[in-house]
Amino acid sequence: MSRLLLNCDIGESFGSWTMGLDAEVMPFIDCANIACGFHAGDPSIMRKTVTLALAHNVKVGAHPAYQDLVGFGRRSMACSAQELQDLLHYQIGALDGICRAQGTRVSYVKPHGAMYNDMMANPQQLRAVVQAVAAYDVNLPLMLMATRDNRAAQAIGDEFGVTLWFEAFADRAYDSAGRLVSRQLPGAVHHDPDVIVQQALTLAAGEPLQSNDGSALYLQANTLCVHGDNASSVSAVQRIREALNQQVQA
Amino acid sequence: MSRLLLNCDIGESFGSWTMGLDAEVMPFIDCANIACGFHAGDPSIMRKTVTLALAHNVKVGAHPAYQDLVGFGRRSMACSAQELQDLLHYQIGALDGICRAQGTRVSYVKPHGAMYNDMMANPQQLRAVVQAVAAYDVNLPLMLMATRDNRAAQAIGDEFGVTLWFEAFADRAYDSAGRLVSRQLPGAVHHDPDVIVQQALTLAAGEPLQSNDGSALYLQANTLCVHGDNASSVSAVQRIREALNQQVQA
Amino acid sequence: MSRLLLNCDIGESFGSWTMGLDAEVMPFIDCANIACGFHAGDPSIMRKTVTLALAHNVKVGAHPAYQDLVGFGRRSMACSAQELQDLLHYQIGALDGICRAQGTRVSYVKPHGAMYNDMMANPQQLRAVVQAVAAYDVNLPLMLMATRDNRAAQAIGDEFGVTLWFEAFADRAYDSAGRLVSRQLPGAVHHDPDVIVQQALTLAAGEPLQSNDGSALYLQANTLCVHGDNASSVSAVQRIREALNQQVQA
Amino acid sequence: MSRLLLNCDIGESFGSWTMGLDAEVMPFIDCANIACGFHAGDPSIMRKTVTLALAHNVKVGAHPAYQDLVGFGRRSMACSAQELQDLLHYQIGALDGICRAQGTRVSYVKPHGAMYNDMMANPQQLRAVVQAVAAYDVNLPLMLMATRDNRAAQAIGDEFGVTLWFEAFADRAYDSAGRLVSRQLPGAVHHDPDVIVQQALTLAAGEPLQSNDGSALYLQANTLCVHGDNASSVSAVQRIREALNQQVQA
Repeated sequence: MSRLLLNCDIGESFGSWTMGLDAEVMPFIDCANIACGFHAGDPSIMRKTVTLALAHNVKVGAHPAYQDLVGFGRRSMACSAQELQDLLHYQIGALDGICRAQGTRVSYVKPHGAMYNDMMANPQQLRAVVQAVAAYDVNLPLMLMATRDNRAAQAIGDEFGVTLWFEAFADRAYDSAGRLVSRQLPGAVHHDPDVIVQQALTLAAGEPLQSNDGSALYLQANTLCVHGDNASSVSAVQRIREALNQQVQA
Repeated sequence: MSRLLLNCDIGESFGSWTMGLDAEVMPFIDCANIACGFHAGDPSIMRKTVTLALAHNVKVGAHPAYQDLVGFGRRSMACSAQELQDLLHYQIGALDGICRAQGTRVSYVKPHGAMYNDMMANPQQLRAVVQAVAAYDVNLPLMLMATRDNRAAQAIGDEFGVTLWFEAFADRAYDSAGRLVSRQLPGAVHHDPDVIVQQALTLAAGEPLQSNDGSALYLQANTLCVHGDNASSVSAVQRIREALNQQVQA
Repeated sequence: MSRLLLNCDIGESFGSWTMGLDAEVMPFIDCANIACGFHAGDPSIMRKTVTLALAHNVKVGAHPAYQDLVGFGRRSMACSAQELQDLLHYQIGALDGICRAQGTRVSYVKPHGAMYNDMMANPQQLRAVVQAVAAYDVNLPLMLMATRDNRAAQAIGDEFGVTLWFEAFADRAYDSAGRLVSRQLPGAVHHDPDVIVQQALTLAAGEPLQSNDGSALYLQANTLCVHGDNASSVSAVQRIREALNQQVQA
Repeated sequence: MSRLLLNCDIGESFGSWTMGLDAEVMPFIDCANIACGFHAGDPSIMRKTVTLALAHNVKVGAHPAYQDLVGFGRRSMACSAQELQDLLHYQIGALDGICRAQGTRVSYVKPHGAMYNDMMANPQQLRAVVQAVAAYDVNLPLMLMATRDNRAAQAIGDEFGVTLWFEAFADRAYDSAGRLVSRQLPGAVHHDPDVIVQQALTLAAGEPLQSNDGSALYLQANTLCVHGDNASSVSAVQRIREALNQQVQA
């Protein structure tokens, strides 16, 4: 059984504003998706976050976004494929510059917010992102969402020689098509820590989830997206970490 | 006689706004100081400028600045040494990211505007800049202003193993202390192309300039700062280029 | 025959960057749509532009936009109706503050770029804009696009008691539905000054245009959108101004 | 005994980032210094803050700053007197626009951070601020720091007909020259709530404080600057409020 990496959005403070329990969640994760200054993060916060990741032997990932600080990168903005690639190269490079001065490097890329959603909704956008990663460093994996069928995405990754890391969620319900159930609907988000841990273990074991219509849903996932927003999410991450460690040892 | 490199601030457009005759001046220079998005430049303009530099075999330099778009980086902003280094790593890295995707890399660093002035006025600031360059890549030269006596700056460069490239101006009068005569004073800026070309040749030959009180001023300069703002400055650059080429061949 | 006002986007410089021939076009227009800092303009440029408008007895209009400086406000950004109203109140207020210190006030509102397009495409968005104007000052007219049938828009204006000023274009071809022909298509933009002036006179006279399929198109327009981007557009504005003056006197 | 108003910096959240316990402190203050978008605040946060102030019958003050979001307006930026006035008119107007749509208006002005410090350190800067307020609305008071001798400031206020509201601090030690003791020094900040309340009562009674060298310090203050950063500062504000209410009734 291959190891399921835990990834978490992190470094989302800005200037005098603090967001997230970065120091608390860092000990339990494998991959830190660090904001690159366009939706959150500033050069000093980026450096502190990279240093924190290094201290816990956590991989640094670039978490680039559309340039929308007030909207936290959650609003789609029309960009040509070329502009999107320019945005990615700028932000990956900026974080890599910070990393380099701290003796490490960016290890993978995960687009944030609306840029992530647009990439999942639009194959042209995904192509542009994959191509951008390949042009920067073909050895950097790209993190994206696991779906019922990852083959179309995988074909794009293969075309450019970019490794794809598919991510799943332990705290969200899925529909039978392999999409996250909308937060507007009841049962979309799991709050019971036992349910969350069990879903993580199921994904790690490569076994099917039960989708919201009761059908079996197989998701091939390399990584699990976890959250460090507040004490209860950090506590869930800790429990997932411990359960996965036990599962691996078992 | 070692070659005097021509460097020029470039890539200073932003979004829909155009500034400078980049395409016209690029054929005549050796080093393009490319804005990194904090005082000018955006990811797409940076990419276009890097591509233009590549087409003319011009070295790409990072031209980082304080974060002050409306003030074009010309206003000093209090930063700790650590914050300054973070700003530099972010911006050098961002341009290097753009470069990398185009198949090239940042070749040197020249701070812009108030960051440049603060570095020249304050040895602590210069130390922070040199240290930042060393931490990013000790093989990147730092461009700074040639003065009557470069030894204090050189000592800082030597301490961190960073090569310094001292720059002089062909179109500005100097005082006997080796400082640029204030633009407020008459005769501060040379407008006669013959005078400009002659000052460039004098500097390239390693001969003394005549300062504004008539005394001889020796400036050890590796590079000459030229301008691509308008047609007459581009024409001056072309004449300097041709004169330097002839001098080298003579 | 009521007078057809000439309106022009103006004050679109930013910081050290200049855009548009504001001083050249101001003498020929009635209404200056002044950028409010979110897509162009900064406080000092806004003050200079207001002063210029005052000198030529031109009405000051607020020209608010989405917050997207690098995209010049041309990219749609998802906003709730409430957020849109907040954006409008902030920007109208900011320009009104500049005006007030110069002894004048904002006289009307015309959204810019993507905000304008979204308002024309989406009646909910138009409602939010009209409501925002009414809440700020019910006596401020709102400028929007004349269509084949202005009644739906007019009903929204009437609901909130806001006067609508419909604008048309003298330099653009229309289709039979009263929409501007896409710039992608041949003949979309008129370049012949005689054609432009004739279309302006036709609109001013309340006579039908000929749409691109040859059918007659009646547009009820209160104002004509003109451009001050370059010398030829300024020259066209001057010719339109003179032709309209003669028409009124005739 | 005239009433000592309690003023508090408020509305300092931005986008997705929260700062300050605005809802908790609002019930106890008289004057809300609301950030105007340049160092904190965005149009939607400004609207929510104005609404909150209205609900508690608190005066809305404009709290303008230099344009430095990442530095929270705490870094001085060189501006001409004219540029400073433009910045003020833009920001006061923007907040006034938000107010107007909520049925209220800006009632006074208090510059923030480095703009405040520069105004107190430099009479030319203070003149520019007073002149800007007068040009916007001569009936708006300007809030500034009470010093040992307010006469020089008062003369500038009188020259332009602008009312000055001098503010003092209940939680800070003063030196004999009437300046705040530097936070670097021991005893600069009072942490004991009893000491804070007593200093507020002393100021409200118009009695002298004891400066840090033991000498008596008379400060003529119209308002007291209080803080809503955290639970203990809010608790101190509540105690000050109650103590002042009792003092007025006594």
